[in-house]
Amino acid sequence: MVEGVVNNETSEFSDQEREAVYRAITTRRDVRRGFLARPMPDALLQKLLAAAHSAPSVGLMQPSRFIVVRDLKVRRAVHDIFERANAQAIASYNGDQRDQYMALKLEGILEAPQNLCIVCDSNSSRGHKLGRHTMPETALYSTICAIQNLWLAARAEGIGVGWVSILDPDRLRDALNIPSHIVPVAYLCIGYVDQFAKEPDLERYGWEKRVPLETLISYDRYPAEGKE
Amino acid sequence: MVEGVVNNETSEFSDQEREAVYRAITTRRDVRRGFLARPMPDALLQKLLAAAHSAPSVGLMQPSRFIVVRDLKVRRAVHDIFERANAQAIASYNGDQRDQYMALKLEGILEAPQNLCIVCDSNSSRGHKLGRHTMPETALYSTICAIQNLWLAARAEGIGVGWVSILDPDRLRDALNIPSHIVPVAYLCIGYVDQFAKEPDLERYGWEKRVPLETLISYDRYPAEGKE
Repeated sequence: MVEGVVNNETSEFSDQEREAVYRAITTRRDVRRGFLARPMPDALLQKLLAAAHSAPSVGLMQPSRFIVVRDLKVRRAVHDIFERANAQAIASYNGDQRDQYMALKLEGILEAPQNLCIVCDSNSSRGHKLGRHTMPETALYSTICAIQNLWLAARAEGIGVGWVSILDPDRLRDALNIPSHIVPVAYLCIGYVDQFAKEPDLERYGWEKRVPLETLISYDRYPAEGKE
Repeated sequence: MVEGVVNNETSEFSDQEREAVYRAITTRRDVRRGFLARPMPDALLQKLLAAAHSAPSVGLMQPSRFIVVRDLKVRRAVHDIFERANAQAIASYNGDQRDQYMALKLEGILEAPQNLCIVCDSNSSRGHKLGRHTMPETALYSTICAIQNLWLAARAEGIGVGWVSILDPDRLRDALNIPSHIVPVAYLCIGYVDQFAKEPDLERYGWEKRVPLETLISYDRYPAEGKE
Protein backbone atom coordinates (compact mmCIF):
# COMPACT_ATOMS: atom_id res chain seq x y z
CA MET A 1 0.00 0.00 0.00
CA VAL A 2 1.13 3.55 -0.63
CA GLU A 3 2.07 5.23 2.64
CA GLY A 4 -0.32 7.96 3.65
CA VAL A 5 -3.13 6.46 1.60
CA VAL A 6 -5.23 4.91 4.31
CA ASN A 7 -8.93 4.95 3.65
CA ASN A 8 -11.62 2.40 3.14
CA GLU A 9 -11.09 2.40 -0.62
CA THR A 10 -7.44 1.54 -0.63
CA SER A 11 -6.41 0.22 2.77
CA GLU A 12 -5.81 -3.42 3.53
CA PHE A 13 -8.43 -5.83 4.80
CA SER A 14 -8.06 -7.00 8.39
CA ASP A 15 -7.81 -10.74 9.02
CA GLN A 16 -11.45 -10.76 10.13
CA GLU A 17 -12.60 -8.88 7.04
CA ARG A 18 -10.64 -11.19 4.77
CA GLU A 19 -12.10 -14.25 6.47
CA ALA A 20 -15.61 -12.84 6.03
CA VAL A 21 -15.09 -12.66 2.26
CA TYR A 22 -13.87 -16.27 2.17
CA ARG A 23 -16.77 -17.31 4.37
CA ALA A 24 -19.29 -15.81 1.95
CA ILE A 25 -17.53 -17.63 -0.90
CA THR A 26 -17.34 -21.03 0.76
CA THR A 27 -20.76 -21.10 2.46
CA ARG A 28 -22.73 -19.72 -0.53
CA ARG A 29 -25.17 -22.33 -1.84
CA ASP A 30 -27.48 -22.77 -4.79
CA VAL A 31 -30.71 -22.75 -2.79
CA ARG A 32 -33.80 -24.53 -4.09
CA ARG A 33 -35.62 -25.39 -0.85
CA GLY A 34 -36.48 -23.73 2.44
CA PHE A 35 -37.43 -20.29 1.16
CA LEU A 36 -39.50 -18.40 3.74
CA ALA A 37 -42.78 -16.69 2.82
CA ARG A 38 -41.64 -13.35 4.29
CA PRO A 39 -40.78 -11.00 1.39
CA MET A 40 -37.50 -9.13 1.32
CA PRO A 41 -37.71 -5.43 2.17
CA ASP A 42 -37.16 -3.32 -0.92
CA ALA A 43 -34.13 -1.58 0.63
CA LEU A 44 -32.38 -4.94 1.00
CA LEU A 45 -33.19 -5.93 -2.56
CA GLN A 46 -31.78 -2.61 -3.79
CA LYS A 47 -28.60 -3.24 -1.78
CA LEU A 48 -28.14 -6.59 -3.50
CA LEU A 49 -28.80 -5.05 -6.92
CA ALA A 50 -26.21 -2.36 -6.15
CA ALA A 51 -23.72 -5.13 -5.37
CA ALA A 52 -24.50 -6.68 -8.76
CA HIS A 53 -24.15 -3.31 -10.44
CA SER A 54 -20.65 -2.88 -8.90
CA ALA A 55 -19.36 -5.78 -10.96
CA PRO A 56 -16.67 -5.40 -13.59
CA SER A 57 -17.96 -4.97 -17.14
CA VAL A 58 -16.08 -4.97 -20.40
CA GLY A 59 -15.35 -1.39 -21.48
CA LEU A 60 -17.45 -0.20 -18.51
CA MET A 61 -20.34 -1.31 -20.67
CA GLN A 62 -22.64 -2.25 -17.76
CA PRO A 63 -24.94 -4.28 -20.03
CA SER A 64 -27.02 -5.93 -17.26
CA ARG A 65 -30.72 -5.25 -16.67
CA PHE A 66 -32.62 -6.50 -13.63
CA ILE A 67 -36.24 -7.65 -13.71
CA VAL A 68 -37.63 -8.15 -10.20
CA VAL A 69 -40.48 -10.65 -10.43
CA ARG A 70 -42.91 -10.60 -7.53
CA ASP A 71 -46.27 -10.98 -9.30
CA LEU A 72 -47.52 -14.49 -8.57
CA LYS A 73 -49.16 -14.69 -11.99
CA VAL A 74 -45.83 -14.07 -13.69
CA ARG A 75 -44.03 -16.51 -11.40
CA ARG A 76 -46.69 -19.13 -12.21
CA ALA A 77 -46.09 -18.59 -15.92
CA VAL A 78 -42.34 -19.07 -15.39
CA HIS A 79 -43.00 -22.14 -13.26
CA ASP A 80 -45.02 -23.63 -16.13
CA ILE A 81 -42.04 -23.00 -18.42
CA PHE A 82 -39.85 -24.83 -15.92
CA GLU A 83 -42.27 -27.77 -15.70
CA ARG A 84 -42.27 -28.18 -19.44
CA ALA A 85 -38.47 -27.99 -19.77
CA ASN A 86 -38.06 -30.29 -16.80
CA ALA A 87 -40.38 -32.90 -18.33
CA GLN A 88 -38.16 -32.92 -21.42
CA ALA A 89 -35.07 -33.22 -19.25
CA ILE A 90 -36.60 -36.15 -17.35
CA ALA A 91 -37.35 -37.89 -20.66
CA SER A 92 -33.66 -37.70 -21.57
CA TYR A 93 -32.59 -39.83 -18.59
CA ASN A 94 -33.10 -43.54 -18.03
CA GLY A 95 -33.40 -46.01 -15.16
CA ASP A 96 -31.77 -45.10 -11.87
CA GLN A 97 -30.51 -41.79 -13.19
CA ARG A 98 -34.04 -40.78 -14.11
CA ASP A 99 -35.31 -41.70 -10.64
CA GLN A 100 -32.47 -39.77 -9.07
CA TYR A 101 -33.13 -36.73 -11.26
CA MET A 102 -36.83 -36.78 -10.47
CA ALA A 103 -36.13 -36.85 -6.73
CA LEU A 104 -34.10 -33.62 -6.92
CA LYS A 105 -35.66 -30.28 -6.04
CA LEU A 106 -34.39 -27.93 -8.72
CA GLU A 107 -36.19 -24.62 -8.25
CA GLY A 108 -38.09 -22.45 -5.77
CA ILE A 109 -39.94 -20.19 -8.22
CA LEU A 110 -43.22 -20.19 -6.32
CA GLU A 111 -41.83 -20.58 -2.78
CA ALA A 112 -39.45 -17.61 -3.00
CA PRO A 113 -41.60 -14.46 -2.77
CA GLN A 114 -39.34 -12.73 -5.26
CA ASN A 115 -37.55 -13.92 -8.35
CA LEU A 116 -34.99 -11.99 -10.34
CA CYS A 117 -34.36 -12.30 -14.04
CA ILE A 118 -31.01 -10.83 -15.05
CA VAL A 119 -30.63 -10.07 -18.73
CA CYS A 120 -27.90 -8.64 -20.92
CA ASP A 121 -28.10 -5.99 -23.60
CA SER A 122 -25.08 -7.47 -25.34
CA ASN A 123 -25.26 -5.21 -28.42
CA SER A 124 -25.32 -1.98 -26.44
CA SER A 125 -22.99 0.70 -27.78
CA ARG A 126 -21.95 1.57 -24.22
CA GLY A 127 -18.22 1.02 -23.74
CA HIS A 128 -17.65 1.79 -27.44
CA LYS A 129 -16.69 -1.84 -28.07
CA LEU A 130 -13.55 -1.59 -25.95
CA GLY A 131 -12.45 -5.16 -25.17
CA ARG A 132 -15.13 -6.63 -27.43
CA HIS A 133 -13.46 -6.61 -30.83
CA THR A 134 -11.82 -10.02 -30.37
CA MET A 135 -14.05 -11.42 -27.59
CA PRO A 136 -17.59 -10.02 -27.96
CA GLU A 137 -18.85 -12.66 -25.53
CA THR A 138 -17.35 -10.60 -22.70
CA ALA A 139 -20.56 -8.51 -22.74
CA LEU A 140 -22.44 -11.58 -21.50
CA TYR A 141 -19.60 -12.46 -19.15
CA SER A 142 -20.00 -9.04 -17.49
CA THR A 143 -23.56 -9.95 -16.56
CA ILE A 144 -22.44 -13.17 -14.90
CA CYS A 145 -19.88 -11.27 -12.82
CA ALA A 146 -22.82 -9.15 -11.62
CA ILE A 147 -24.79 -12.26 -10.71
CA GLN A 148 -21.95 -13.71 -8.66
CA ASN A 149 -21.53 -10.40 -6.80
CA LEU A 150 -25.22 -10.47 -5.93
CA TRP A 151 -25.02 -14.10 -4.86
CA LEU A 152 -22.20 -13.43 -2.38
CA ALA A 153 -23.78 -10.24 -0.99
CA ALA A 154 -27.00 -12.23 -0.55
CA ARG A 155 -25.15 -14.92 1.41
CA ALA A 156 -23.75 -12.27 3.75
CA GLU A 157 -27.31 -10.97 4.25
CA GLY A 158 -28.68 -14.45 5.00
CA ILE A 159 -30.56 -14.45 1.70
CA GLY A 160 -30.68 -17.61 -0.39
CA VAL A 161 -30.29 -17.54 -4.17
CA GLY A 162 -31.01 -20.36 -6.60
CA TRP A 163 -30.27 -20.21 -10.34
CA VAL A 164 -32.85 -21.95 -12.54
CA SER A 165 -31.55 -22.78 -16.03
CA ILE A 166 -34.16 -25.45 -16.80
CA LEU A 167 -36.18 -22.94 -18.83
CA ASP A 168 -36.65 -22.43 -22.55
CA PRO A 169 -35.13 -18.97 -23.12
CA ASP A 170 -37.68 -18.02 -25.81
CA ARG A 171 -40.62 -18.89 -23.60
CA LEU A 172 -39.02 -16.93 -20.78
CA ARG A 173 -38.67 -13.96 -23.16
CA ASP A 174 -42.37 -14.20 -23.95
CA ALA A 175 -43.40 -14.40 -20.30
CA LEU A 176 -41.37 -11.33 -19.29
CA ASN A 177 -41.69 -9.25 -22.52
CA ILE A 178 -37.95 -9.47 -23.10
CA PRO A 179 -37.09 -8.17 -26.60
CA SER A 180 -35.31 -10.53 -28.99
CA HIS A 181 -32.00 -8.60 -28.87
CA ILE A 182 -31.78 -8.93 -25.08
CA VAL A 183 -30.29 -12.16 -23.68
CA PRO A 184 -31.97 -13.74 -20.64
CA VAL A 185 -28.85 -14.82 -18.75
CA ALA A 186 -30.18 -16.02 -15.40
CA TYR A 187 -33.45 -16.61 -13.65
CA LEU A 188 -32.93 -16.53 -9.89
CA CYS A 189 -35.16 -17.48 -6.97
CA ILE A 190 -34.23 -15.27 -4.06
CA GLY A 191 -35.36 -14.79 -0.49
CA TYR A 192 -34.96 -15.49 3.20
CA VAL A 193 -34.16 -19.12 3.96
CA ASP A 194 -34.27 -21.21 7.10
CA GLN A 195 -30.67 -22.33 6.67
CA PHE A 196 -27.78 -22.83 4.26
CA ALA A 197 -26.85 -26.45 3.59
CA LYS A 198 -23.33 -27.57 4.38
CA GLU A 199 -22.80 -29.20 1.00
CA PRO A 200 -24.16 -28.56 -2.48
CA ASP A 201 -27.51 -30.34 -2.90
CA LEU A 202 -26.30 -32.24 -5.97
CA GLU A 203 -23.46 -33.72 -3.93
CA ARG A 204 -25.65 -34.40 -0.93
CA TYR A 205 -28.13 -36.35 -3.02
CA GLY A 206 -25.50 -38.22 -5.00
CA TRP A 207 -25.92 -36.62 -8.43
CA GLU A 208 -22.28 -35.53 -8.78
CA LYS A 209 -19.12 -35.29 -6.66
CA ARG A 210 -16.88 -32.27 -6.36
CA VAL A 211 -13.63 -32.65 -8.27
CA PRO A 212 -10.32 -32.04 -6.43
CA LEU A 213 -8.88 -28.63 -7.28
CA GLU A 214 -5.34 -29.89 -7.85
CA THR A 215 -6.45 -31.87 -10.91
CA LEU A 216 -7.61 -28.62 -12.55
CA ILE A 217 -4.42 -26.57 -12.29
CA SER A 218 -1.56 -26.52 -14.76
CA TYR A 219 1.45 -24.28 -15.23
CA ASP A 220 2.37 -22.15 -18.25
CA ARG A 221 0.43 -24.37 -20.65
CA TYR A 222 -2.69 -26.53 -20.77
CA PRO A 223 -1.75 -30.04 -19.65
CA ALA A 224 -0.88 -32.57 -22.32
CA GLU A 225 -3.68 -34.91 -23.40
CA GLY A 226 -4.36 -37.85 -21.17
CA LYS A 227 -4.11 -35.86 -17.98
CA GLU A 228 -7.35 -34.32 -16.81
CA MET B 1 -31.93 -19.40 11.15
CA VAL B 2 -32.91 -22.71 12.68
CA GLU B 3 -32.50 -22.55 16.44
CA GLY B 4 -29.68 -24.65 17.73
CA VAL B 5 -27.87 -24.58 14.37
CA VAL B 6 -25.11 -22.10 15.09
CA ASN B 7 -21.90 -22.79 13.29
CA ASN B 8 -19.75 -21.03 10.76
CA GLU B 9 -21.52 -22.74 7.88
CA THR B 10 -25.03 -21.65 8.69
CA SER B 11 -24.95 -18.83 11.21
CA GLU B 12 -25.57 -15.22 10.32
CA PHE B 13 -22.88 -12.75 9.35
CA SER B 14 -22.07 -10.01 11.88
CA ASP B 15 -22.43 -6.40 10.70
CA GLN B 16 -18.65 -6.19 10.34
CA GLU B 17 -18.47 -9.39 8.31
CA ARG B 18 -21.29 -8.26 6.05
CA GLU B 19 -19.62 -4.90 5.49
CA ALA B 20 -16.37 -6.65 4.58
CA VAL B 21 -18.14 -8.53 1.80
CA TYR B 22 -19.64 -5.30 0.43
CA ARG B 23 -16.27 -3.60 0.75
CA ALA B 24 -14.60 -6.28 -1.40
CA ILE B 25 -17.40 -5.86 -3.95
CA THR B 26 -17.31 -2.06 -4.13
CA THR B 27 -13.53 -1.54 -3.96
CA ARG B 28 -12.60 -4.30 -6.42
CA ARG B 29 -11.00 -2.84 -9.54
CA ASP B 30 -9.90 -4.01 -12.96
CA VAL B 31 -6.19 -3.39 -12.44
CA ARG B 32 -3.91 -2.68 -15.39
CA ARG B 33 -1.16 -0.59 -13.79
CA GLY B 34 0.92 -0.60 -10.63
CA PHE B 35 1.67 -4.32 -10.39
CA LEU B 36 4.65 -4.96 -8.13
CA ALA B 37 7.54 -7.17 -9.21
CA ARG B 38 7.28 -9.32 -6.07
CA PRO B 39 5.71 -12.68 -7.05
CA MET B 40 2.77 -14.07 -5.10
CA PRO B 41 3.59 -16.96 -2.76
CA ASP B 42 2.21 -20.20 -4.09
CA ALA B 43 0.06 -20.74 -0.97
CA LEU B 44 -1.75 -17.45 -1.63
CA LEU B 45 -2.32 -18.31 -5.26
CA GLN B 46 -3.75 -21.67 -4.22
CA LYS B 47 -6.09 -19.91 -1.79
CA LEU B 48 -7.41 -17.73 -4.59
CA LEU B 49 -7.83 -20.73 -6.88
CA ALA B 50 -9.74 -22.51 -4.11
CA ALA B 51 -12.06 -19.49 -3.91
CA ALA B 52 -12.64 -19.76 -7.66
CA HIS B 53 -13.23 -23.49 -7.32
CA SER B 54 -15.94 -22.83 -4.67
CA ALA B 55 -18.11 -21.11 -7.27
CA PRO B 56 -21.50 -22.46 -8.30
CA SER B 57 -21.49 -24.59 -11.43
CA VAL B 58 -24.37 -25.94 -13.42
CA GLY B 59 -25.11 -29.54 -12.38
CA LEU B 60 -22.02 -29.38 -10.14
CA MET B 61 -20.15 -29.67 -13.43
CA GLN B 62 -17.09 -27.68 -12.30
CA PRO B 63 -15.90 -27.17 -15.87
CA SER B 64 -13.14 -24.62 -15.11
CA ARG B 65 -9.43 -25.27 -15.58
CA PHE B 66 -6.71 -22.92 -14.36
CA ILE B 67 -3.46 -22.27 -16.21
CA VAL B 68 -1.00 -20.31 -14.06
CA VAL B 69 1.36 -18.48 -16.41
CA ARG B 70 4.64 -17.38 -14.86
CA ASP B 71 7.13 -18.18 -17.64
CA LEU B 72 8.22 -14.84 -19.11
CA LYS B 73 8.57 -16.41 -22.57
CA VAL B 74 4.94 -17.46 -22.51
CA ARG B 75 3.82 -14.08 -21.15
CA ARG B 76 5.79 -12.38 -23.95
CA ALA B 77 3.99 -14.53 -26.52
CA VAL B 78 0.63 -13.53 -25.02
CA HIS B 79 1.72 -9.90 -24.93
CA ASP B 80 2.47 -10.10 -28.67
CA ILE B 81 -1.05 -11.46 -29.20
CA PHE B 82 -2.38 -8.49 -27.25
CA GLU B 83 -0.32 -6.01 -29.29
CA ARG B 84 -1.64 -7.40 -32.54
CA ALA B 85 -5.30 -7.38 -31.41
CA ASN B 86 -4.85 -3.93 -29.92
CA ALA B 87 -3.45 -2.55 -33.17
CA GLN B 88 -6.59 -3.79 -34.93
CA ALA B 89 -8.76 -2.23 -32.24
CA ILE B 90 -6.93 1.10 -32.59
CA ALA B 91 -7.52 1.03 -36.34
CA SER B 92 -11.27 0.76 -35.73
CA TYR B 93 -11.43 4.14 -33.92
CA ASN B 94 -11.08 7.62 -35.40
CA GLY B 95 -10.05 11.09 -34.31
CA ASP B 96 -10.33 11.97 -30.64
CA GLN B 97 -11.66 8.56 -29.72
CA ARG B 98 -8.60 6.93 -31.24
CA ASP B 99 -6.29 9.24 -29.26
CA GLN B 100 -8.23 8.53 -26.10
CA TYR B 101 -8.10 4.76 -26.69
CA MET B 102 -4.37 4.84 -27.36
CA ALA B 103 -3.75 6.71 -24.10
CA LEU B 104 -5.43 3.96 -22.05
CA LYS B 105 -3.37 1.27 -20.33
CA LEU B 106 -5.28 -1.93 -20.97
CA GLU B 107 -3.13 -4.79 -19.66
CA GLY B 108 -0.32 -5.69 -17.29
CA ILE B 109 0.77 -9.00 -18.87
CA LEU B 110 4.50 -8.39 -18.45
CA GLU B 111 4.40 -6.30 -15.27
CA ALA B 112 2.34 -8.78 -13.24
CA PRO B 113 4.72 -11.64 -12.32
CA GLN B 114 1.90 -14.12 -12.76
CA ASN B 115 -0.95 -14.36 -15.22
CA LEU B 116 -3.85 -16.76 -15.06
CA CYS B 117 -5.75 -18.16 -18.00
CA ILE B 118 -9.09 -19.63 -16.98
CA VAL B 119 -10.64 -21.99 -19.48
CA CYS B 120 -13.83 -24.01 -19.66
CA ASP B 121 -14.35 -27.62 -20.67
CA SER B 122 -17.90 -26.85 -21.73
CA ASN B 123 -18.59 -30.27 -23.25
CA SER B 124 -17.57 -32.21 -20.16
CA SER B 125 -19.96 -34.97 -19.18
CA ARG B 126 -19.64 -34.00 -15.53
CA GLY B 127 -22.99 -32.94 -14.10
CA HIS B 128 -24.74 -35.30 -16.53
CA LYS B 129 -26.18 -32.32 -18.43
CA LEU B 130 -28.36 -31.28 -15.49
CA GLY B 131 -29.42 -27.68 -16.14
CA ARG B 132 -27.83 -27.67 -19.59
CA HIS B 133 -30.58 -29.12 -21.78
CA THR B 134 -32.23 -25.76 -22.42
CA MET B 135 -29.32 -23.43 -21.59
CA PRO B 136 -26.02 -25.16 -22.47
CA GLU B 137 -24.25 -21.79 -22.15
CA THR B 138 -24.47 -22.17 -18.37
CA ALA B 139 -21.31 -24.30 -18.54
CA LEU B 140 -19.40 -21.20 -19.60
CA TYR B 141 -21.31 -19.09 -17.11
CA SER B 142 -20.07 -21.36 -14.31
CA THR B 143 -16.50 -20.45 -15.21
CA ILE B 144 -17.26 -16.73 -14.98
CA CYS B 145 -18.76 -17.20 -11.51
CA ALA B 146 -15.42 -18.78 -10.55
CA ILE B 147 -13.53 -15.80 -11.95
CA GLN B 148 -15.60 -13.31 -9.97
CA ASN B 149 -15.06 -15.33 -6.77
CA LEU B 150 -11.32 -15.19 -7.37
CA TRP B 151 -11.45 -11.47 -8.12
CA LEU B 152 -13.17 -10.67 -4.82
CA ALA B 153 -10.94 -12.95 -2.75
CA ALA B 154 -7.96 -11.27 -4.42
CA ARG B 155 -9.24 -7.83 -3.45
CA ALA B 156 -9.50 -8.97 0.16
CA GLU B 157 -5.89 -10.18 -0.05
CA GLY B 158 -4.66 -6.88 -1.53
CA ILE B 159 -4.05 -8.60 -4.87
CA GLY B 160 -4.95 -6.81 -8.09
CA VAL B 161 -6.62 -8.59 -10.99
CA GLY B 162 -7.03 -7.29 -14.54
CA TRP B 163 -9.00 -9.09 -17.27
CA VAL B 164 -7.50 -8.83 -20.76
CA SER B 165 -9.99 -9.60 -23.53
CA ILE B 166 -8.06 -7.85 -26.30
CA LEU B 167 -6.66 -11.18 -27.50
CA ASP B 168 -7.46 -13.40 -30.43
CA PRO B 169 -8.75 -16.60 -28.77
CA ASP B 170 -7.22 -18.90 -31.40
CA ARG B 171 -3.78 -17.37 -31.03
CA LEU B 172 -4.14 -17.63 -27.26
CA ARG B 173 -5.02 -21.31 -27.69
CA ASP B 174 -1.86 -21.82 -29.73
CA ALA B 175 0.35 -20.04 -27.20
CA LEU B 176 -0.93 -22.10 -24.25
CA ASN B 177 -1.56 -25.44 -26.02
CA ILE B 178 -5.28 -25.20 -25.30
CA PRO B 179 -7.17 -27.89 -27.25
CA SER B 180 -9.88 -26.77 -29.67
CA HIS B 181 -12.75 -28.12 -27.54
CA ILE B 182 -11.67 -26.03 -24.52
CA VAL B 183 -12.87 -22.41 -24.38
CA PRO B 184 -10.38 -19.76 -23.22
CA VAL B 185 -12.74 -17.65 -21.10
CA ALA B 186 -10.47 -15.15 -19.40
CA TYR B 187 -6.84 -14.09 -19.38
CA LEU B 188 -6.03 -12.36 -16.09
CA CYS B 189 -3.02 -10.37 -14.92
CA ILE B 190 -2.69 -10.87 -11.21
CA GLY B 191 -0.37 -9.73 -8.46
CA TYR B 192 0.48 -7.37 -5.65
CA VAL B 193 -0.31 -3.75 -6.44
CA ASP B 194 0.69 -0.45 -4.90
CA GLN B 195 -2.93 0.66 -4.53
CA PHE B 196 -6.48 0.23 -5.74
CA ALA B 197 -7.92 3.18 -7.64
CA LYS B 198 -11.05 4.85 -6.29
CA GLU B 199 -12.85 4.76 -9.63
CA PRO B 200 -12.72 2.48 -12.61
CA ASP B 201 -9.89 3.56 -14.96
CA LEU B 202 -12.26 3.88 -17.92
CA GLU B 203 -14.34 6.39 -15.98
CA ARG B 204 -11.31 8.21 -14.61
CA TYR B 205 -9.88 8.71 -18.10
CA GLY B 206 -13.20 9.69 -19.66
CA TRP B 207 -13.85 6.64 -21.84
CA GLU B 208 -17.28 5.84 -20.36
CA LYS B 209 -19.46 6.88 -17.43
CA ARG B 210 -21.18 4.57 -15.00
CA VAL B 211 -24.91 4.28 -15.60
CA PRO B 212 -27.32 4.91 -12.67
CA LEU B 213 -28.66 1.63 -11.28
CA GLU B 214 -32.28 2.79 -11.12
CA THR B 215 -32.47 3.00 -14.92
CA LEU B 216 -31.66 -0.73 -15.13
CA ILE B 217 -34.37 -2.12 -12.86
CA SER B 218 -37.90 -3.06 -13.85
CA TYR B 219 -40.67 -4.98 -12.15
CA ASP B 220 -42.37 -8.18 -13.30
CA ARG B 221 -41.61 -7.51 -16.96
CA TYR B 222 -38.93 -5.98 -19.14
CA PRO B 223 -39.72 -2.27 -19.54
CA ALA B 224 -41.71 -1.21 -22.58
CA GLU B 225 -39.66 0.09 -25.51
CA GLY B 226 -38.50 3.67 -25.30
CA LYS B 227 -37.46 3.40 -21.67
CA GLU B 228 -33.89 2.27 -21.14
